[in-house]
Amino acid sequence: MRSIARSLGLGSAAMALTALTALAWPGTAGATPSAAAAPATTASLYTPSALVLGVTAGDDARRGTVLRAVTLVCAPAPGGTHPDPVGACAELREHGARLDALTAPAADTACTREWNPMTVTADGVWDGRRLSYAHTFGNACGLRSTAGVLFDF
Amino acid sequence: MRSIARSLGLGSAAMALTALTALAWPGTAGATPSAAAAPATTASLYTPSALVLGVTAGDDARRGTVLRAVTLVCAPAPGGTHPDPVGACAELREHGARLDALTAPAADTACTREWNPMTVTADGVWDGRRLSYAHTFGNACGLRSTAGVLFDF
Repeated sequence: MRSIARSLGLGSAAMALTALTALAWPGTAGATPSAAAAPATTASLYTPSALVLGVTAGDDARRGTVLRAVTLVCAPAPGGTHPDPVGACAELREHGARLDALTAPAADTACTREWNPMTVTADGVWDGRRLSYAHTFGNACGLRSTAGVLFDF
Repeated sequence: MRSIARSLGLGSAAMALTALTALAWPGTAGATPSAAAAPATTASLYTPSALVLGVTAGDDARRGTVLRAVTLVCAPAPGGTHPDPVGACAELREHGARLDALTAPAADTACTREWNPMTVTADGVWDGRRLSYAHTFGNACGLRSTAGVLFDF
């Protein structure tokens, strides 16, 4: 009986120590595999928005060769390798995931119609949801003449 | 006849001026919509590699809520919001697009088996090809116990 009480006491002491450790290093304590029941790392306070934008030669976004790619982060602050993250994030906030508004031709543009396709892609996370978008332009002029700055890189 | 020659001469002068402009500002000259036949902006010298890595609650990567997302750029140099871009890029270079090697459990881990799924995703461009990957762990312990650092954020 006494030995049971003693082992219970030891167990309690170990649990208290674990709790103290968790208090002292809240970020690292949950990383041990034994803490399986603990919640995952606390989600950050903002909804994640991070995209990879690419330009692919041809009209096959899946198998084509990606010529250029940039990253765009919009939360907590605009950033990434996109040349104009502030402008691109503002466009995304205005149009949400409806990116067709940003690949539409600008008002005062005129392009020839030869078929030499270029495809733009956007993949990643927007406002906490996964996003996958592709749009094919007939030629490079269409790509350069979009209404938005999102695909201008 | 003379007027035709004169207009030809003017045309040649204009073309020469355009060529000179293109030489002086090679990056910007192609951006005018009228230069439709010109090639697109020159592809950079390195193959693009940029990814968005996410952690989604639940087992549905398409419709689930993304809790966290980071960017990872591996060319021309490791960068992005990933906490260990150098380590993550080294793992990707070693395993290529076969990310299952990086979601496999580390050697000395033991997790309980309750079903509280977490899904990791990788979307974007790896080595000039589009990449879309998803893997569901049974619970958060599996996510914390992977062999690689790629999904450790």
